[in-house]
Amino acid sequence: MAQNIYDTPEFFAGYQRLSRSVRGLDGAPEWPALQSMLPGIAGKRVVDLGCGFGWFARWARAQGAAEILGIDLSENMLARARAAANDEAIRYKQADLETLDLPASSFDLAYSSLAFHYVEHLDRLFGALHRALVQSGHFVFSIEHPLYMASVRPGWLLADDGRRVWPVDSYANEGSRVTDWLAKGVVKHHRKLSTTLNSLIGAGFRIEHVNEWSPSAEQIAQQPALRDEVERPMMVLIAASRS
Amino acid sequence: MAQNIYDTPEFFAGYQRLSRSVRGLDGAPEWPALQSMLPGIAGKRVVDLGCGFGWFARWARAQGAAEILGIDLSENMLARARAAANDEAIRYKQADLETLDLPASSFDLAYSSLAFHYVEHLDRLFGALHRALVQSGHFVFSIEHPLYMASVRPGWLLADDGRRVWPVDSYANEGSRVTDWLAKGVVKHHRKLSTTLNSLIGAGFRIEHVNEWSPSAEQIAQQPALRDEVERPMMVLIAASRS
Repeated sequence: MAQNIYDTPEFFAGYQRLSRSVRGLDGAPEWPALQSMLPGIAGKRVVDLGCGFGWFARWARAQGAAEILGIDLSENMLARARAAANDEAIRYKQADLETLDLPASSFDLAYSSLAFHYVEHLDRLFGALHRALVQSGHFVFSIEHPLYMASVRPGWLLADDGRRVWPVDSYANEGSRVTDWLAKGVVKHHRKLSTTLNSLIGAGFRIEHVNEWSPSAEQIAQQPALRDEVERPMMVLIAASRS
Repeated sequence: MAQNIYDTPEFFAGYQRLSRSVRGLDGAPEWPALQSMLPGIAGKRVVDLGCGFGWFARWARAQGAAEILGIDLSENMLARARAAANDEAIRYKQADLETLDLPASSFDLAYSSLAFHYVEHLDRLFGALHRALVQSGHFVFSIEHPLYMASVRPGWLLADDGRRVWPVDSYANEGSRVTDWLAKGVVKHHRKLSTTLNSLIGAGFRIEHVNEWSPSAEQIAQQPALRDEVERPMMVLIAASRS
């Protein structure tokens, strides 16, 4: 079973204060890029893996999605999501992505934002999602970039010449990484980018687009801290289709 | 036009002494992985982009390839390649990958080993290769990994805790990188891994397999220096098909 860090009080308190929790999709700088990778939403049946507070579900509904199923492990998140919308087309379900199963051919789009690095058995999940999608269905997600996650001690270093660099080590050593982010002992699962791509291909998906996300000059001007994301990507966005 | 560094005496002298120059394919530790990504070769028409001394051309011929065209910018390399085989099925041609054009639908397999990071206009080249391949043709290549190439000063650093780490910076700043390898002022072209993948997809290829190469435990036991490649990949191997 996946670690349910979002339901620990310390983590949840911190998570609630993030820009993407307070402002929703518009508080996530990668959202314009991720949005541009989505197919048309109107009339679609959508599943959101790791739906959190339900910002995407409500956005998809506003775009005319026929139905949205939001899945999350965290009761705290789901309680907030349920309270935020009274819409019969949006359903929420508590489930673990390590063991999730969905009815066959029942969705047109599978979506996930920054949840899959918490999943150990991604091959299994991708297989389940392939079965759950209709032929030519779309699968669009973001995941923490392995370059950001690989090191046994991720964090900026100062080189002798004063440059600030991001350390990479242990890139080929796939497996769990324990970090302190919002709370101590957050467990993530490091995989090479190629492993994630090959898992998709192996499950029967076709890779349509990959974006090792970095901010635009305009975004950096508005939010200078985003400059870090030019130096090394924190996340990668992937669009695939069910073939 | 691409830099013809292989024809500078200092670089060529150093290159000739590399294990992969002396021992051929068996001197390249990634070769077993790259070989496993190749389709059956017997009866195939093959083009090798950046063929160097022609080791792959002779191997492909020994596997029963019908014809092989080896392309390289370096006259030094081609002279050695031509001297090494007297076989009408193998042809060599001096050409710049920045401007190369090939007859349409004339090859079953396009292959390249560690040449494309010297090419600035990869979109153009991928388009030319797509046209040159038959429907369902294969495209298998290795390229220097952008994680290895991104930094403005690539090279191991010691962290405060004694860890040896590889620095990443400037990952999203695509463009030329000038390094000293065998000779001073070698120009390479840094692109995000996602950019290379999207270039393939944009040219009409389907991504079949990606391998951010790292050595096996057995290879490390035989050649301990390869341990570095576990910490950070130096190259990525990609298989695609013409769809």
